[in-house]
Amino acid sequence: MSNFNIDHQREGRIGFPEIVFGASKDINTLKNIINHVLEKNSKVLITKLQPEKYEILKNEFRDTFYDLPSGIMIIGKLPTIRKKKEEVGILSGGTSDEFVVNEAFYTLSFLGIKAKRYIDVGAAGVHRLTEKTEQIKTAKVLIVCAGFEGALPTVVGGLFPQPIIAVPVSVGYGVAKGGKAALNAMLSSCANGLTVTNIDNGYGAAIAAYRILNINKK
Amino acid sequence: MSNFNIDHQREGRIGFPEIVFGASKDINTLKNIINHVLEKNSKVLITKLQPEKYEILKNEFRDTFYDLPSGIMIIGKLPTIRKKKEEVGILSGGTSDEFVVNEAFYTLSFLGIKAKRYIDVGAAGVHRLTEKTEQIKTAKVLIVCAGFEGALPTVVGGLFPQPIIAVPVSVGYGVAKGGKAALNAMLSSCANGLTVTNIDNGYGAAIAAYRILNINKK
Amino acid sequence: MSNFNIDHQREGRIGFPEIVFGASKDINTLKNIINHVLEKNSKVLITKLQPEKYEILKNEFRDTFYDLPSGIMIIGKLPTIRKKKEEVGILSGGTSDEFVVNEAFYTLSFLGIKAKRYIDVGAAGVHRLTEKTEQIKTAKVLIVCAGFEGALPTVVGGLFPQPIIAVPVSVGYGVAKGGKAALNAMLSSCANGLTVTNIDNGYGAAIAAYRILNINKK
Amino acid sequence: MSNFNIDHQREGRIGFPEIVFGASKDINTLKNIINHVLEKNSKVLITKLQPEKYEILKNEFRDTFYDLPSGIMIIGKLPTIRKKKEEVGILSGGTSDEFVVNEAFYTLSFLGIKAKRYIDVGAAGVHRLTEKTEQIKTAKVLIVCAGFEGALPTVVGGLFPQPIIAVPVSVGYGVAKGGKAALNAMLSSCANGLTVTNIDNGYGAAIAAYRILNINKK
Amino acid sequence: MSNFNIDHQREGRIGFPEIVFGASKDINTLKNIINHVLEKNSKVLITKLQPEKYEILKNEFRDTFYDLPSGIMIIGKLPTIRKKKEEVGILSGGTSDEFVVNEAFYTLSFLGIKAKRYIDVGAAGVHRLTEKTEQIKTAKVLIVCAGFEGALPTVVGGLFPQPIIAVPVSVGYGVAKGGKAALNAMLSSCANGLTVTNIDNGYGAAIAAYRILNINKK
Amino acid sequence: MSNFNIDHQREGRIGFPEIVFGASKDINTLKNIINHVLEKNSKVLITKLQPEKYEILKNEFRDTFYDLPSGIMIIGKLPTIRKKKEEVGILSGGTSDEFVVNEAFYTLSFLGIKAKRYIDVGAAGVHRLTEKTEQIKTAKVLIVCAGFEGALPTVVGGLFPQPIIAVPVSVGYGVAKGGKAALNAMLSSCANGLTVTNIDNGYGAAIAAYRILNINKK
Amino acid sequence: MSNFNIDHQREGRIGFPEIVFGASKDINTLKNIINHVLEKNSKVLITKLQPEKYEILKNEFRDTFYDLPSGIMIIGKLPTIRKKKEEVGILSGGTSDEFVVNEAFYTLSFLGIKAKRYIDVGAAGVHRLTEKTEQIKTAKVLIVCAGFEGALPTVVGGLFPQPIIAVPVSVGYGVAKGGKAALNAMLSSCANGLTVTNIDNGYGAAIAAYRILNINKK
Amino acid sequence: MSNFNIDHQREGRIGFPEIVFGASKDINTLKNIINHVLEKNSKVLITKLQPEKYEILKNEFRDTFYDLPSGIMIIGKLPTIRKKKEEVGILSGGTSDEFVVNEAFYTLSFLGIKAKRYIDVGAAGVHRLTEKTEQIKTAKVLIVCAGFEGALPTVVGGLFPQPIIAVPVSVGYGVAKGGKAALNAMLSSCANGLTVTNIDNGYGAAIAAYRILNINKK
Repeated sequence: MSNFNIDHQREGRIGFPEIVFGASKDINTLKNIINHVLEKNSKVLITKLQPEKYEILKNEFRDTFYDLPSGIMIIGKLPTIRKKKEEVGILSGGTSDEFVVNEAFYTLSFLGIKAKRYIDVGAAGVHRLTEKTEQIKTAKVLIVCAGFEGALPTVVGGLFPQPIIAVPVSVGYGVAKGGKAALNAMLSSCANGLTVTNIDNGYGAAIAAYRILNINKK
Repeated sequence: MSNFNIDHQREGRIGFPEIVFGASKDINTLKNIINHVLEKNSKVLITKLQPEKYEILKNEFRDTFYDLPSGIMIIGKLPTIRKKKEEVGILSGGTSDEFVVNEAFYTLSFLGIKAKRYIDVGAAGVHRLTEKTEQIKTAKVLIVCAGFEGALPTVVGGLFPQPIIAVPVSVGYGVAKGGKAALNAMLSSCANGLTVTNIDNGYGAAIAAYRILNINKK
Repeated sequence: MSNFNIDHQREGRIGFPEIVFGASKDINTLKNIINHVLEKNSKVLITKLQPEKYEILKNEFRDTFYDLPSGIMIIGKLPTIRKKKEEVGILSGGTSDEFVVNEAFYTLSFLGIKAKRYIDVGAAGVHRLTEKTEQIKTAKVLIVCAGFEGALPTVVGGLFPQPIIAVPVSVGYGVAKGGKAALNAMLSSCANGLTVTNIDNGYGAAIAAYRILNINKK
Repeated sequence: MSNFNIDHQREGRIGFPEIVFGASKDINTLKNIINHVLEKNSKVLITKLQPEKYEILKNEFRDTFYDLPSGIMIIGKLPTIRKKKEEVGILSGGTSDEFVVNEAFYTLSFLGIKAKRYIDVGAAGVHRLTEKTEQIKTAKVLIVCAGFEGALPTVVGGLFPQPIIAVPVSVGYGVAKGGKAALNAMLSSCANGLTVTNIDNGYGAAIAAYRILNINKK
Repeated sequence: MSNFNIDHQREGRIGFPEIVFGASKDINTLKNIINHVLEKNSKVLITKLQPEKYEILKNEFRDTFYDLPSGIMIIGKLPTIRKKKEEVGILSGGTSDEFVVNEAFYTLSFLGIKAKRYIDVGAAGVHRLTEKTEQIKTAKVLIVCAGFEGALPTVVGGLFPQPIIAVPVSVGYGVAKGGKAALNAMLSSCANGLTVTNIDNGYGAAIAAYRILNINKK
Repeated sequence: MSNFNIDHQREGRIGFPEIVFGASKDINTLKNIINHVLEKNSKVLITKLQPEKYEILKNEFRDTFYDLPSGIMIIGKLPTIRKKKEEVGILSGGTSDEFVVNEAFYTLSFLGIKAKRYIDVGAAGVHRLTEKTEQIKTAKVLIVCAGFEGALPTVVGGLFPQPIIAVPVSVGYGVAKGGKAALNAMLSSCANGLTVTNIDNGYGAAIAAYRILNINKK
Repeated sequence: MSNFNIDHQREGRIGFPEIVFGASKDINTLKNIINHVLEKNSKVLITKLQPEKYEILKNEFRDTFYDLPSGIMIIGKLPTIRKKKEEVGILSGGTSDEFVVNEAFYTLSFLGIKAKRYIDVGAAGVHRLTEKTEQIKTAKVLIVCAGFEGALPTVVGGLFPQPIIAVPVSVGYGVAKGGKAALNAMLSSCANGLTVTNIDNGYGAAIAAYRILNINKK
Repeated sequence: MSNFNIDHQREGRIGFPEIVFGASKDINTLKNIINHVLEKNSKVLITKLQPEKYEILKNEFRDTFYDLPSGIMIIGKLPTIRKKKEEVGILSGGTSDEFVVNEAFYTLSFLGIKAKRYIDVGAAGVHRLTEKTEQIKTAKVLIVCAGFEGALPTVVGGLFPQPIIAVPVSVGYGVAKGGKAALNAMLSSCANGLTVTNIDNGYGAAIAAYRILNINKK
């Protein structure tokens, strides 16, 4: 089956183009889809792409970028970042969350949004977070990633007034394995007004931030 | 134990006051907490309050409001709604979702935000949604509530560019009982950039919308 | 143990022959079972067969067909397709569902039924579905496959009057991993009169369609 | 909120009217919805209605019918049953399944379809089923209800060629409580070509049978 | 059956007597067991006793104490509290956790241990915790109770060096209902060296604290 | 529906008659079924019958027996107990398990089997079990009931050579609620050769014991 | 750590020796344990041993036997089978269950018990079972293995009077994956007096059968 | 991203340094973090490190120690063990639990605490435990590890007065797979005053023991 059905009108309708979920597609399907998207777009974003697939795809297309921890691949020239000051702060509990942090970070780059990453500000050492309060306050939207017990969004939600997008990360073992403990903790948070994405969905968090940053465009 | 520890500084820190979760507290605890809050605030919001508790509390305080489906209670004068045009659209799949829709609606009223409710625009009859496209587009933020299979946020997310806060509702039976089927569907949505709250958390969705509407205040 | 107990009377009793579940059997068991079936049948269907097993089996039998995405293997000559117009429409949310779509498609081919595949008509871009309404209406039975949140059968069920067999697909990550989010969404659907098969059970959906198409034979 | 959004075009589109899910709506909402439906229809079906609600509603409307085990309520004159010979056979494992059997039976009556109930033909005494083989073979579609381990559809599926709609029933205790053991057994059945509805969804099974019986109408 | 089998040697063996789990026993069984315990002990502790059972039992025995939120009942004279300074600090996220906090507190009273309760020091307002640092540091063991997302033990574990017994509380709704979200968060905590009890097991936490306080007795 | 389908041949086929599951049937259905059974049998066993139903049924039939904790009801004269020495030992962890112990005990009485109950021999005080070793060794089959963590069958299985039927009991709270923790512990037991019934299924354990005691009849 | 703690008295106490669980132990640990057991026993049984470990171990010991599907290994001379007529019948739904059937079969061989395997008598083709009724009746104990929906023990339990040990098998996909659907179906069975082992526990079923066959030894 | 945020003040604050979770970090991240820690500390503990990573890291640092079963790695000189008599007893049900036992043991070594391991004292052979009673009584804290049904902590808790830290181990299959059956059994234990860590968290249990041993330092 080589006929696809790309939703080319999506960007006009909701403000951002269709992207490609790389994890479950084979190389031929990927090549075909990418070529279809590039017929009407100047760039493509592929998420959760395995490195061995990237090794093949990078020889097929020009201007490719790949981030190993997240598996995100971008084909085409990135847009100019639209503001000097960062618009999105991406916080995480520990270095093991990097693959999700980066998925959000590079999706935002793809969309022309400046972001800043704050690694290792986990809830078991709150002072690391509070000593950066002033800097974090300058962002318009916060994306907060955490694995294990997922407590960081609760602490952040109690300290900062911005929109907070909590992203559970599948880092941990035993009851934390797969990220459900973090997900449920974030959904249950006492720090009201948090919203949550699927486990490891850094891409979705970035799009959610993008939707928020655009609310005054209308 | 009659000593409480109200977080009176919360409004200054994150932009909205501490509220009271009514479902699991007895009448005496509720009275004491409300009185403590009213010492430094002109109004209080109590969520998920059983009707039999309201019947007692309404005689203890002035200027009370209570919404039976949601169990939300407000004590004190509501603020003037700050804009004529609605800022938040609240969509739901069916009339059974009313208790969550109203929790979001009255929390926004409590915060001075105008909202409009769109009932019965469920995914099994998509035309009911598409025929209201122009009106829904005028809102800055969309809160989308659905029980059973929770498909509505996916359809809405594919049609509209705004920030979308999906709220799973505990309406349904069999595998839909308790709202987990709707929750997981929303978290898994192909319509990217949705974010999700806990099941039945209309209050949290309203606060999340409020955080978003405030991003240009800074 | 080399003695099998093939249910050779099944086709006479319920209208279709016993097939072989390939995933959990080793090569020797498979060869023996296939030979037993071929003693009284002209063709055999094997489902969910790993490619490395096919590489061995294809040298043992004549007239073999194998579909890589689904792992379906057919041994023997296929029957003539019994009608020119398609009798079954197979819809899916995205290209990642191909392995299940094909399992249904080739099982129907094995039974002599014409089917048509509609790929990439997912619920996050409803227009792709509605623009094919007239064509989809011509099928007698619809099989609808979807992973992630599994919203497609709800939308299809609200638009079309045919029998709808919903097939959850194990594509997705986080809470969607393994296909349970899609399964539960389909079982909970507001679009009444859907029925559901096990996750990834394209074969079962095809047999269910076959049972339906035969109701006037009696 | 008294404005509803009844999908009056549904019958034209998919062949059967919108019905009312009674369990989670209060009396006033129910009255309003029923009146809205009756504006354009001559009859209404309400499912899973609690008896205390029926006691009030029966005084508000004419021509009401109520079945206590299933909680199904019908308002308006039933259509003439369209064929003398039954078209649907409804089988169940035991008398405790009656509430689901009846929900399917009366929904079919509402739609003008003749059905026959076969109670107490459970898999722990297979002879009770096999001694009725000839009679069961005359039905065009089989609905098979079972609680506890839900084994009946497997046995039926191995004996009969018709379309089989399996309905798990929430009868049982321990691991069978709530009906998930029966649901999972039915989804996993070795008797291929079964399809399954949500737990206790006799209504959905009846609509699915109706969709099947209509396939030659086109 | 009126013959019991009280483990009268338990106190000698492990340092504290057998207690009575009140929730699942009827009045007659309770009376008989209590009388058997009192044959060889001067006091009895009954946990999770429903108020209506207490109303009957208080007339049967002398020197009874009952705490309504926790349902703990003590029969007999309490021992002198063995130290002036408190040995155990009991922290909780909110007033809704009171029933578990009190179960721990009164079990410690029963054993002669002084404890202090710190209510409303939840993780969504960290300053309420940090401003009490000096006082909390004086306790030898900390019991930390929290419902909803259960983040408090993580924050406490990162700030204090004492043994920390985390107690998940069944307060919350949606995914937090029943206390499993809090339990899994506590088990997954990044703040190492926490240990956890069953949901709502304030009694068990008190006994665990008692075992710890006794380690130098030997 | 008043036509039943009692499996009157069951006793001839498998050695014991069909019994009636009382929990989910209404009074009229119960009366009808009981009367049908009594047409060909001299006695009936009804399990898990609510007390308020017994209050009605006891006036309708002669020779009734009812055990309140288990809800077991027997109609008709009990058979003579067939041996002087007990054949089955029923052990339990605590008095809260009584309702399951009694269900097994009275089912055995109904079948003419002598049994002895050993209450309060739980694994947290192993000496209570070991001091009864000689007596327990005289039984031919052991039924071991336990709630909470369900450790008793493991200890018993390591000490005794008889067939051991482990019955998880739905006593406990938090993760033990509903009996699944005990069930899974019993299924996982290191003490090999245990077999397990559904939660609270004292009746099933008794029938399993009866099947075992009959193995030499053939 | 090379010091083990073999329970050499187990056979005297409960009638069969300690066996070795092979799956989670490395080669050195296995060698050491086996040598310790062989100090006081003439034979050893190792369960769920991976083939690559067997390839090493077979060179270290004499008189080894290994069954590939089940991974069971026996070291030492097997006892004479104690009766000519088989004492245990092992039934299974399909050839995919072979690995569990064989684990039970060879454990019984190890203990000197004659057994007979009945493969492919699954519930979707009941006639294959009923045509072997006379032969199956001659066994004293039945072990019934089934994956997928696990319906076979229910059908067997309704036809045969012997003790029935149901063994769920981890064959299947979707909701059947891992064997929990089969396990829960067996625990919920309407065919009373079944007992159940852990998933894939053919060894445990054999020991349970052995305990039963020994009840008259005393 | 090469900037880390090591919590260097942690040892001063809570008595033990930050450690490194090795399982989810790549080699470069590990090297960088270790170097950062070593800037201010003389030794580092890395947990759950895969052997292939150790093979690389051992060439990068001096004074390395690695335990294969547990994957624990220590860099730097170990402190002198602070007491001659062991302070912690580590008990386990079987040799398969070794990887968790060792994680606790070497973490305690890292902290200068003497411990003793008691392997193979599982609940299915209680005598192996009771014959070591005197020796076990000398420890100040007990860590009790068990997989499968996790019954050992219950038995130990009923026999010994010390603080008991129960550690569920992910050894087992079927319902025991992953360790949840053992976890839930330990949380539900009737032997009160047990506390529990996450599955396989030997490290956490050691830190918990360390917190307890330090309570008299203050």
